[in-house]
Amino acid sequence: MSFSLTVLGSSSALPTSKRFPTAQVLNVQERFFLIDCGEGTQIQIRKFKLPLSRIHHIFISHLHGDHVFGLFGLLSSMNLLGRNADLTIHAHAAMENLIRYFTTSFGTDLQFRIIFEPFPSRRQSLIYEDKMVTVETIPLKHGIPTVGFVFREKKRPLNIRKDSVEQLRIPYREIVKIKEGADFITDEGKVYKNSELTLPEIRPRSYAFITDTAYQEKIAGLIQHVDLLYHEATFLDTDRKLARLTGHSTALQAAGIAHKACAGKLLLGHFSSRYKNVAAFVSEASTVFENTVAVEDGDVFQVEETRER
Amino acid sequence: MSFSLTVLGSSSALPTSKRFPTAQVLNVQERFFLIDCGEGTQIQIRKFKLPLSRIHHIFISHLHGDHVFGLFGLLSSMNLLGRNADLTIHAHAAMENLIRYFTTSFGTDLQFRIIFEPFPSRRQSLIYEDKMVTVETIPLKHGIPTVGFVFREKKRPLNIRKDSVEQLRIPYREIVKIKEGADFITDEGKVYKNSELTLPEIRPRSYAFITDTAYQEKIAGLIQHVDLLYHEATFLDTDRKLARLTGHSTALQAAGIAHKACAGKLLLGHFSSRYKNVAAFVSEASTVFENTVAVEDGDVFQVEETRER
Repeated sequence: MSFSLTVLGSSSALPTSKRFPTAQVLNVQERFFLIDCGEGTQIQIRKFKLPLSRIHHIFISHLHGDHVFGLFGLLSSMNLLGRNADLTIHAHAAMENLIRYFTTSFGTDLQFRIIFEPFPSRRQSLIYEDKMVTVETIPLKHGIPTVGFVFREKKRPLNIRKDSVEQLRIPYREIVKIKEGADFITDEGKVYKNSELTLPEIRPRSYAFITDTAYQEKIAGLIQHVDLLYHEATFLDTDRKLARLTGHSTALQAAGIAHKACAGKLLLGHFSSRYKNVAAFVSEASTVFENTVAVEDGDVFQVEETRER
Repeated sequence: MSFSLTVLGSSSALPTSKRFPTAQVLNVQERFFLIDCGEGTQIQIRKFKLPLSRIHHIFISHLHGDHVFGLFGLLSSMNLLGRNADLTIHAHAAMENLIRYFTTSFGTDLQFRIIFEPFPSRRQSLIYEDKMVTVETIPLKHGIPTVGFVFREKKRPLNIRKDSVEQLRIPYREIVKIKEGADFITDEGKVYKNSELTLPEIRPRSYAFITDTAYQEKIAGLIQHVDLLYHEATFLDTDRKLARLTGHSTALQAAGIAHKACAGKLLLGHFSSRYKNVAAFVSEASTVFENTVAVEDGDVFQVEETRER
C-alpha cells in the first residue's frame, strides 16, 4: 500500500522557470490529499500524472498567494471535467469568502459541493480522520495565521498467518479476536501466543508538512518520529536575520527541527529565488541532520511498508 | 526593429501538461505588451526569457478565469521584484474591483501604481496609442463582454538617402520636409522627387488577437490586411454546433476570417483538450486559408521589417 509524496511546486513566493509555487500531493493508500495550491497546481497535477478526480480533500496552510492562487483554476477545471463528488477544503475560515467571491465574480456555477472545514490556527487540532489516516494541524509562526499538517497512518489490524489458521483449525470468531491482539486457546487448553499466530505489525507511516514558519523549537515535539518531514528552508544561515524578520526558516534551522523530531528524512523546499544553487541548503542542513534532500518539482518520495514486532 | 509575438499559453479553459491557458507577449520595437494572463503566465514569462519588468501594459480580452487567473500572481511577483513603474491594465471595468479585492484579501501592499483603463466592449475603440503603435478593440461574441485587440505600427518618417543629402547639399530645414514627403527644389529651380531622395517606406506591421468568440464575419472587416492573425479555434468543424453554443469558433471559421481579412498568416490556438492532435485544425483551416499554423506554447512569430514604395 502506497505512502508517497509528489512535490508539485517548491519555490518560495517568487516562482522560477523550474520551480512552481508550493503544492504537494500525498498518496496514502490510494487516497490523494492535496496540500497547498500555488499557481499552476492543476498543470503540475497533469504533468506528473496524478488523478485530479480522486482528490477529495485540500489542505491549505495559510492564505498567502503563493500557497493559494492555483485554487481558482483548479476548481474551474474540476467543474469542466464534470466533477460531482464533494470536495472538502480545510483552511483558515477566510477561505470560504474568498472562494465565494471567486465563483461569483467569474460566474462559475460549480456542479459539485465544496465543504469548508475551517480550523483554528493557534492550537494543534485533529482536523481529519478516516479509517486509514489522521491529519493534525501544527501551529506555525508566520505573518498571518499559518499551520503545518501531520499525516499519520492508523494502526492496521494484525494479519493472521494462514498456515496457523489451517493447522490449528481456528474458528472464525477467534480469528477476529486474534487480529485485535488476543492469544488463541485450544479446546484442550493449549495457549498459542498472538505473536505466533500473526505477522509482525505493519508500521504506520507519517508525513509532516511545515511551511511557512520562523524557527519554532516546539514544532519538533509535535511531529516526533515522522518518517518524512518537509520543512521550509527559504534562506541559508547567513541570512538568518532576514528569515526571522520575514517569518521563515533557514536550512540549518529546518535540520535542527528534523534532528529534534527524530525524523526519518528531511525534505527542504520553498527556497528563495535569490540563491542560484540549492546544494548549499543540503550541505548546511547535513551538518545537523544527515538524511536531507532539496526537493525538485516532480520528485516523488515513498515510504515503504515495513513490518515490525 | 522587432515585431514578434511569443505564445505563453494556448489551451482553452482546460490546460494540459503542455499547454497553459491563454497569454501572449507582443514585442513592438522593444515595447512589451502582455495580452491576457491565464494561470501560470509569470512562469512562462520566465521560462521564455521575456523581460517582466518591461511590461507596462496588460490587455485583458474578457474576465473568464483562463484569461485572468495568472494576474494575481504576476502582480505579487512584480511587487516582490521591486517594481515601482506604473502598470496599466486595459480591461473590462469589472477588473478594477477584482484586483482591489485581491490586494486587500492577500494583504498585498503594491509598491507600484496600477492604472485601470476600462474600455467599452460593444464598439471598436482606440484604447492605446504611443509614438510607435496603436491598439484598437474589436467587439467579439462570447458569453460575457469580450474584445479582440489589433496592434498596428504607425507609419514611420521616411529615411532620407545620405548620398542625396551630400550630393545635393540639402539644407537641414529641407530634410525635415523631405522626411514628411516633400520634394526638393534647388535654388536653380530643379525639382528632385521625394522618391528619388528617400528610401522606400518601412511598411507598418500589424497583429490581431481574436479570442474568445463565436464566428462573426464582421470581424474580418475590422482587421483587414493584418500581418498576423491569432484566431481561436476551440473546435473542429464537426463540432460547429457546440462552437456556436459555447461562443467559440472552429478552425474552418477562423480560416474564413483570415481569408476575408486578407491576413498574412493565421495562428490557431485555444484548442479544446478533447482533441488529442492539433494537426486536424491546420488541415481543416488550410482548405480555406493556406498560411496557417497551430501554435505551441513558446512559439515566437516574427514579422520582418520590409520597405515598400
